[in-house]
Amino acid sequence: MCYYPEQWPRGKWAEDARRMVELGLSWVRIGEFAWAKIEPRSGEFHWEWLDEAIDVLGKAGLKVILGTPTAAPPKWLVNRYPEILPVDATGAVRKFGARRHYCFSSRRYRSEAARITEAMARRYGEHIYVHAWQTDNEYGDHDTIYSYSAEAVGAFRLWLAERYGSIDELNRAWGTSFWSMRYDSFEEIDLPNNLVEEPSPTHGVDFIRFSSDQVKSFNKAQVDIIRAHSPGRPVTHNFMSQNTDFDHYRVGEDIDIASWDVYPMGGLLNGRLAAKDKEHYLRVGDPDQPAFNHDLYRAVGRGRVWVMEQQPGPVNWAAHNQSPADGMVRLWTWLAYAHGVDMVSYFRWRQAPFAQEQFHAGLLLPNSEADQGYLEVAEVVAEMKRLPEGEVRGKAQVAIVLDYESRWATRVLPQGRSYSASAVALDWYSTVARLGVDVDFIGQHSDIAGYKLILAPDLVIAEEAFVERLTRADAKVVFGARSGSKTRDMHIPEGLPPGPLAKLIDISVSRVESLPEFHSETVLYGNEAYEAGGWRETVRTSETVIASFDGEYRNGAPALVGSDKARYLAVAANGALLDKVIGDALGWAGLESLPDLGDLRVTRRGNLRFAFNFGRIPAEVPAGASAEFYVGGRTLKPVDVAIWRE
Amino acid sequence: MCYYPEQWPRGKWAEDARRMVELGLSWVRIGEFAWAKIEPRSGEFHWEWLDEAIDVLGKAGLKVILGTPTAAPPKWLVNRYPEILPVDATGAVRKFGARRHYCFSSRRYRSEAARITEAMARRYGEHIYVHAWQTDNEYGDHDTIYSYSAEAVGAFRLWLAERYGSIDELNRAWGTSFWSMRYDSFEEIDLPNNLVEEPSPTHGVDFIRFSSDQVKSFNKAQVDIIRAHSPGRPVTHNFMSQNTDFDHYRVGEDIDIASWDVYPMGGLLNGRLAAKDKEHYLRVGDPDQPAFNHDLYRAVGRGRVWVMEQQPGPVNWAAHNQSPADGMVRLWTWLAYAHGVDMVSYFRWRQAPFAQEQFHAGLLLPNSEADQGYLEVAEVVAEMKRLPEGEVRGKAQVAIVLDYESRWATRVLPQGRSYSASAVALDWYSTVARLGVDVDFIGQHSDIAGYKLILAPDLVIAEEAFVERLTRADAKVVFGARSGSKTRDMHIPEGLPPGPLAKLIDISVSRVESLPEFHSETVLYGNEAYEAGGWRETVRTSETVIASFDGEYRNGAPALVGSDKARYLAVAANGALLDKVIGDALGWAGLESLPDLGDLRVTRRGNLRFAFNFGRIPAEVPAGASAEFYVGGRTLKPVDVAIWRE
Amino acid sequence: MCYYPEQWPRGKWAEDARRMVELGLSWVRIGEFAWAKIEPRSGEFHWEWLDEAIDVLGKAGLKVILGTPTAAPPKWLVNRYPEILPVDATGAVRKFGARRHYCFSSRRYRSEAARITEAMARRYGEHIYVHAWQTDNEYGDHDTIYSYSAEAVGAFRLWLAERYGSIDELNRAWGTSFWSMRYDSFEEIDLPNNLVEEPSPTHGVDFIRFSSDQVKSFNKAQVDIIRAHSPGRPVTHNFMSQNTDFDHYRVGEDIDIASWDVYPMGGLLNGRLAAKDKEHYLRVGDPDQPAFNHDLYRAVGRGRVWVMEQQPGPVNWAAHNQSPADGMVRLWTWLAYAHGVDMVSYFRWRQAPFAQEQFHAGLLLPNSEADQGYLEVAEVVAEMKRLPEGEVRGKAQVAIVLDYESRWATRVLPQGRSYSASAVALDWYSTVARLGVDVDFIGQHSDIAGYKLILAPDLVIAEEAFVERLTRADAKVVFGARSGSKTRDMHIPEGLPPGPLAKLIDISVSRVESLPEFHSETVLYGNEAYEAGGWRETVRTSETVIASFDGEYRNGAPALVGSDKARYLAVAANGALLDKVIGDALGWAGLESLPDLGDLRVTRRGNLRFAFNFGRIPAEVPAGASAEFYVGGRTLKPVDVAIWRE
Repeated sequence: MCYYPEQWPRGKWAEDARRMVELGLSWVRIGEFAWAKIEPRSGEFHWEWLDEAIDVLGKAGLKVILGTPTAAPPKWLVNRYPEILPVDATGAVRKFGARRHYCFSSRRYRSEAARITEAMARRYGEHIYVHAWQTDNEYGDHDTIYSYSAEAVGAFRLWLAERYGSIDELNRAWGTSFWSMRYDSFEEIDLPNNLVEEPSPTHGVDFIRFSSDQVKSFNKAQVDIIRAHSPGRPVTHNFMSQNTDFDHYRVGEDIDIASWDVYPMGGLLNGRLAAKDKEHYLRVGDPDQPAFNHDLYRAVGRGRVWVMEQQPGPVNWAAHNQSPADGMVRLWTWLAYAHGVDMVSYFRWRQAPFAQEQFHAGLLLPNSEADQGYLEVAEVVAEMKRLPEGEVRGKAQVAIVLDYESRWATRVLPQGRSYSASAVALDWYSTVARLGVDVDFIGQHSDIAGYKLILAPDLVIAEEAFVERLTRADAKVVFGARSGSKTRDMHIPEGLPPGPLAKLIDISVSRVESLPEFHSETVLYGNEAYEAGGWRETVRTSETVIASFDGEYRNGAPALVGSDKARYLAVAANGALLDKVIGDALGWAGLESLPDLGDLRVTRRGNLRFAFNFGRIPAEVPAGASAEFYVGGRTLKPVDVAIWRE
Repeated sequence: MCYYPEQWPRGKWAEDARRMVELGLSWVRIGEFAWAKIEPRSGEFHWEWLDEAIDVLGKAGLKVILGTPTAAPPKWLVNRYPEILPVDATGAVRKFGARRHYCFSSRRYRSEAARITEAMARRYGEHIYVHAWQTDNEYGDHDTIYSYSAEAVGAFRLWLAERYGSIDELNRAWGTSFWSMRYDSFEEIDLPNNLVEEPSPTHGVDFIRFSSDQVKSFNKAQVDIIRAHSPGRPVTHNFMSQNTDFDHYRVGEDIDIASWDVYPMGGLLNGRLAAKDKEHYLRVGDPDQPAFNHDLYRAVGRGRVWVMEQQPGPVNWAAHNQSPADGMVRLWTWLAYAHGVDMVSYFRWRQAPFAQEQFHAGLLLPNSEADQGYLEVAEVVAEMKRLPEGEVRGKAQVAIVLDYESRWATRVLPQGRSYSASAVALDWYSTVARLGVDVDFIGQHSDIAGYKLILAPDLVIAEEAFVERLTRADAKVVFGARSGSKTRDMHIPEGLPPGPLAKLIDISVSRVESLPEFHSETVLYGNEAYEAGGWRETVRTSETVIASFDGEYRNGAPALVGSDKARYLAVAANGALLDKVIGDALGWAGLESLPDLGDLRVTRRGNLRFAFNFGRIPAEVPAGASAEFYVGGRTLKPVDVAIWRE
Repeated sequence: MCYYPEQWPRGKWAEDARRMVELGLSWVRIGEFAWAKIEPRSGEFHWEWLDEAIDVLGKAGLKVILGTPTAAPPKWLVNRYPEILPVDATGAVRKFGARRHYCFSSRRYRSEAARITEAMARRYGEHIYVHAWQTDNEYGDHDTIYSYSAEAVGAFRLWLAERYGSIDELNRAWGTSFWSMRYDSFEEIDLPNNLVEEPSPTHGVDFIRFSSDQVKSFNKAQVDIIRAHSPGRPVTHNFMSQNTDFDHYRVGEDIDIASWDVYPMGGLLNGRLAAKDKEHYLRVGDPDQPAFNHDLYRAVGRGRVWVMEQQPGPVNWAAHNQSPADGMVRLWTWLAYAHGVDMVSYFRWRQAPFAQEQFHAGLLLPNSEADQGYLEVAEVVAEMKRLPEGEVRGKAQVAIVLDYESRWATRVLPQGRSYSASAVALDWYSTVARLGVDVDFIGQHSDIAGYKLILAPDLVIAEEAFVERLTRADAKVVFGARSGSKTRDMHIPEGLPPGPLAKLIDISVSRVESLPEFHSETVLYGNEAYEAGGWRETVRTSETVIASFDGEYRNGAPALVGSDKARYLAVAANGALLDKVIGDALGWAGLESLPDLGDLRVTRRGNLRFAFNFGRIPAEVPAGASAEFYVGGRTLKPVDVAIWRE
């Protein structure tokens, strides 16, 4: 439960704590925006209120997750050190008055963040009621990873010197022979904003890499301090879903549990779906977006994943903020559990009647009455008691590769305005999910043993070592278009794309094109014609052509090519074509799947099987004859959940 | 008539004046952009041309409205005091080269504005031909109310200190406990631009309040000077319709007559209507937008309203600038008269062949030939002679509440991208107008005695005192969604929305949601189903549920609730649903109305009745058997006017 | 061929050169982005690589076009003189890191550009293998003509003092009496950016004129240096099509050959056509845009035109980058030849695997394999050998006036958001082309002798001298709407538009209007009704009304008026109405035309006739019975070319 004692009169704390416990909650996160309350003036600490708050909560029976308050530096700190403020891409300083107004490259802010973290960790590190820590809050919210400050320039130069060793090597990698862009020293290099034209893509991606590393080191500094003073308490960070501004795996390496913030309503409206599907799912959200992220952050947390913030009703920040259907708070909670999440915290306990987020629902209304979310949490708590304990989410047979560097490659060089790697990956995930097959996410660093099928929808920068391991693994692999198309230096590989992937499948891509929305290509696959669009490649191959293009342009050219080991899809696909490609691939890998589940989703955690109905009509659950239901039954109403074992 | 002697050779003045009088005009406004001609260098006054211009116009028989020239400070003033220039939200100084390049918070500019105003008022205050004054010109044009200058910061701090008394009180009101936003002193506060995220909504609304007060005091300073030197001459300001950047009532308190500038063609294209309605009304404009503003500025002027600028043909400033239909200049002039306007001035006499507005039509073409507008004005003048004199627009039985602070509340916290309080209010007005019922506008300060029905489409911030007076008044009241949903501090009221309005109708709003354009909700009202969208609320009530929601989400929840005193509409409505809600409310309040008038509009001024046909086919006028027509007859052609008494 | 020895290892140069010659190429352009390689540090010249590169290329049999490298100043130069960087309209400095990062008004950059140009010209001016020069590269790319730097302000003031002589004359021309905008001296004048509202249109157009003159003088300085040191070698510049930021005729006066860069794929997607036509022509491009520009740059080059860069496959810079159909590189090459182009160079020899343009195709793939473009060039080279030599493109009988100042007039005062003079002119060109009639472009300075029909689709600023020459010429003339509507001072002409054109046709325009996209007007022309939209004028005339408006607004008003000498079209027309207007005009001028060619285009060069099929089905070539085919035959496949003589 996300709770803000600093926002409420002390008189309410005990009652709030009592009701939380009564509801069945066991964790409470506090403190992450409380710096100004803890230290209202430089060096003047007011611990008494926080001591009391922790005490009240702990004594009521709650385990406290304590947040470091660095996401919101207080005004006195900004007054004294205005250089900590971030700078946007136009060069404007982003001012105090909201949150996340700091630059990750500010050395002064790093030392101040360490100071307050240490003060908190010393005071509460071994506190009996403090059971876990959260660092900062939602790195990347409000576009705050990239700062174009003077300190960022300096830090970027040092980072480049470290990466390249010599300026000649940087000149080679960036291709500065191209437009007389040659540098004589690292000191000459500037940030890639306010240019006349786009920078060298290597310059662009390096700035993202650098910024990502800044987040990692900023976070790790806090983790190290916490660990020194608070042994045995896990440290987490609450990541934002769909954010790829920094490498979440690399931050995840330094923490114990990955948590993420689940807001499916805004995710639907901002997301990949066509308008008619957004209408269909208006109050239930994209059925696959939360599950995708549970699976992803399970990988980021190396097996341990929490939900730190679960939307309990309408929120305040999307272009439109519709209400979830009654029942969705319960459904999302069970969905999280099914996908391996071990703790779900709701944001927030009580709706705030003041400040920026007063349109954001809580479990309680501003007047402390129970709102819909509260009732649904109570339902989940009751149902949970019926389930056997100790069920653990197992390893899947299918893995999807999500690689942050590859995302940066297509962000910096999209080549087509409508190309979205994020939508591509979610479409692939969704296709597998509709066939009832569980998925793990992997990065190129991950262990791949045991997977039967590995899907790489957008692995643009394929590392040699990873390709090597793929070669030796048993898994079959399916690559999406653009896979292997850039080296680490953001160059086209020698010998053409897909570069090192050609070891798995003998193809070479001689031409790529991005296509406008009004145009589609036709693909013939097993005597059926399918529509596809947005991206098309010309592939030369000695392998089997499984599907081919049909039409005026390069009629008969390969659209899907396959070797014994790997398949390569030379077009951006979704809808029926992607169903066919993925469906066939599952069979090819020897995996069983279900017929298209439509709006139903199924998954398993240990011996428990789950079904979720995101549709508007009742659906039959694919349970065996021997199924024993803990929750629900064979027929599932809309917005309902079934849990059984077979 | 808007005339610019400084733009034409002296030789043309006498002929122009003669033709104005010949056309039947009696008022001429001059001077409002002439500072550089009056005082071409600091302290060097050239009154002789203005003396002569006033003399020529006055002797020809025209009454002069003299404008203070502060809307366009001359270059020498900007050179000497560059700090008078306004600063935009990005921090960029807005340069000299057009108009309105001043910051309302510049003390230097205030003293310079006072100096030139005093010089003019001293010279012409008691001039025989000067009959009225206009302050400045179109406050708010080109987004000039909000300036982010250093002086604005300073003035804002003083204003906050005045408003809140103590920084603790500000911290409470702004909710700075939210994100460690706490301030130690007023000196720490900054303007709400260039933040990482949105500011506290109270911070946002306070900046608008402050900016509005700056306009009021800037204007009042001029009025005071003029009144001191020009007794007996009314002072006006020409407001821009649809502008809600400052509180027009509060500026209106300090002047004698409110005037406004009538440009319906651009208003149509920028306005609330769907594309097919824009096509239907392409050359006649939104039928209700001019009348809405006549009625509004009648309230702003406490009964006295002028049109200072009437579009006489195509203009230059909209995204597209279509021509009004021939006849519309006459129609708009009569419409103004019918709604209580006592003077209509056209912008402009002759089309300028140079500078920024050369595509803006005049009554005369650039070569001084009469254009279409001229001919239509002549027609109105002739028709006017047939009418009895002394008819006065009476008080209506229906009042609509328009509250500027409420507009700022939804501007700062829209919660849904497509929510437009301006469109909501105009839709409600239009619905009443199509039923043939006259309307007055009121603010929360207004006398409400005598109204049978008060409509409050968007009264977000309802003041206790106003609610108190509503309680005691005889009027029935209809509230739109979001009414009473914020306190003066921009908080959710204790005890939930609609806060103090619950005294009139026992409801409580437990959830609100904004909905995307592609979705609509169904409302059952008297066995008919209606579509609505954009905004929906969950209301709990002990009152009668008059209409309810139908559908998957919270089926049966109240959509329209009624007590004996008040009704509350829990959804954004327009079209057929709004027709039903308003139509029923009129009957409930004991008011008669006409069947839907379609493209016809009717109103009355004293004993005169008026009908206007905005449609494309002839229409029958709803005149009684005894009707005696002054202008037109029972059948009205498109773009035509009928005037009669019964 | 565009080649970049600085981007490739020396070891590849000889092989590349050999293959170019083998392919049949004879020209190679090098050097235009190589400054940093030539002079890596101030004054430290490294000629040896360029000596060798020229030597290798020349010895292989290629003629070198040497580019001055001023489009990409090196980093050391920017470090030393940061004031050379351009400033954008918001006031932000545009930084180093791509190309074209210089301000045309920087005196320092002018002296540095002269220095490097002189160094190159001295070294290679009389080099045996250097046969031509290119100045800089693509003036205007990336919006680089307008810089808002401190030096630009100073230079603009001097330019204004030169143009106007006295500040009073500037005040008159700019109409500064309008909003107290009067200036006391040229030193007070600022650039027209960051204003509160739009500037005086004369201010706006003068800034464009000034900026255009800056480009001319910058270019001429290089030409003068080259001519001094490299006698007998032609100098060219590679213009960007559709760019009207500066007056290409005036830069063209100073060079020997105009060249331009042919990228039809991006031109299609950014261009004038409706979405369904963009789909139809997706892989062949707008059939008329390349031909339009060949004809235009033939005028800019006073008869001599080259293609310096021909797209050889997909490019990297458009919103989407589709592949051209196989065959289009051949077709475009022949189209260029047919329209009088004497040299076609392809951009680029080999696709770059690094830096900004790695998605830009070359004739070779990055791994040096021949790509599709290579094969098509080989085809053209073989076909070319079958043709007789020495055929010269003759003068056309129809001329279209393209006037840069007129373009600036409508850019600064569009009066309707959707008005595009560029689309209007291309629509008129396209209409003539579909009727099989060849066209020359002319400016107001051009010789007009011999033309039978002159089309002036958007001659907004008509010079008296040109009108005088039109009066005396034999040609018939057709004017589009807005013709003659502004004077050189950007005023409405005395006596109303079309100003001086009334000498050719007795009309006067009393009203103009711009119309939104959702509205269309109906025009009756010879008993047929046509749709038109976007712009409409009210014309008064004593001449013959050839077509008239039909509808509610000013029914019967003239839409097309004609005298013996001239016709005036009072509406924006395309589609069927424009076909009718142009078709009739050809007949009226005594010219023969073909029936609508649909997707076929025909033209002639000397005795050679050409047909090009841009369609998707075979087409019959309009060849006489005696036709003798060099290439292709009577039936032309899609994307194919026929060449014959009769």
